[in-house]
Amino acid sequence: MTDTPQDAGDDYARHNARMKRMAEARAKMQARRTLERGLLIVHTGNGKGKSSSAFGMAIRSIGWGMKVAILQYVKGKWETGERNFFEAYPDLATFEVMGQGFTWDTQDRAQDIAAARAAWERSKEMILDPAIDFVILDELNIVLRDDTLPIAEIVAFLKERPLTKHICITGRGAKPELLEIADLVTDFGEVKHPYHAGFAAQKGVEF
Amino acid sequence: MTDTPQDAGDDYARHNARMKRMAEARAKMQARRTLERGLLIVHTGNGKGKSSSAFGMAIRSIGWGMKVAILQYVKGKWETGERNFFEAYPDLATFEVMGQGFTWDTQDRAQDIAAARAAWERSKEMILDPAIDFVILDELNIVLRDDTLPIAEIVAFLKERPLTKHICITGRGAKPELLEIADLVTDFGEVKHPYHAGFAAQKGVEF
Repeated sequence: MTDTPQDAGDDYARHNARMKRMAEARAKMQARRTLERGLLIVHTGNGKGKSSSAFGMAIRSIGWGMKVAILQYVKGKWETGERNFFEAYPDLATFEVMGQGFTWDTQDRAQDIAAARAAWERSKEMILDPAIDFVILDELNIVLRDDTLPIAEIVAFLKERPLTKHICITGRGAKPELLEIADLVTDFGEVKHPYHAGFAAQKGVEF
Repeated sequence: MTDTPQDAGDDYARHNARMKRMAEARAKMQARRTLERGLLIVHTGNGKGKSSSAFGMAIRSIGWGMKVAILQYVKGKWETGERNFFEAYPDLATFEVMGQGFTWDTQDRAQDIAAARAAWERSKEMILDPAIDFVILDELNIVLRDDTLPIAEIVAFLKERPLTKHICITGRGAKPELLEIADLVTDFGEVKHPYHAGFAAQKGVEF
């Protein structure tokens, strides 16, 4: 930008003309994007935001009148903000916690496998339920990464899923077999994390 | 894992012992993370999920009884899932849309600058309001990237912010000056996006 009002006016006029051309180009691009069906979405990576982004999509979906089901694979009985929220507003979404805690907390491989199996059976019900429009399987990637559930079985089921709903799977370390069949994959990269500066996990942010 | 139940039992016992050691190491690590104060959080990158992750943190915060304020810098009058949601449940959070649309839609640089300035003045009120615990400035990065607001002024204000609340700023192309003063930065990387396969933006997912 330049100094005098006249120059600023010229700059603005050039900017406005450029934006007009950009709008036309974007309209053409959008016109080619016409497909619509349920998406298989994967949130992975070591950065923060994978689960919260899924909860944000839940909010958007609820805002459109869609029915949302959320199943947590890892979190156990402890209190979280999302759990408090969905328990306070039970009509908004189906929210189920079927995890038993982190593997280092349970210290019981047989129990981890049984809990993951039960959660997966419930997940299949949600995915097959025609009343549900969006299924969030929170931290399923962790369970798959640790081979607590067999990836081949999960992928085979997801390939045959109904295409009438979105499914979002979160957790670090997503298996390549899952990424292969996904429609939308975001890698959450850690650039800066307050843990490294000595901060505790904080309410509202991490849980 | 191995074939016989006896071997599986041995594997499980080794796993369980390893998890016990991991739990002890983690407990020591957590004990060193004791700082707590409001975090300055930045969501940037070209991938999907920056805004929805902020909305998810809003849900977590509401679940903890915190007061949340959300201000959208770019989205204009059009309908979105998040807008429908927070308008349907106005007691949950303060939700304000002060953008006028994308720059290629407005095609009016002077109007963009005036709208961004008004949004920033409102943002400062939210940040200074002692009743608000979490402020989300959605797409502020876009406005800063385009120099629609001066980064130096915004950074100077944020450096002096009250440390009693979290602030989350979203949008691609975050300025280095902002990353420098942030506590938590996630880069949302696009691995696979349905746009490229011809899909339209879909309700609940993108808006």
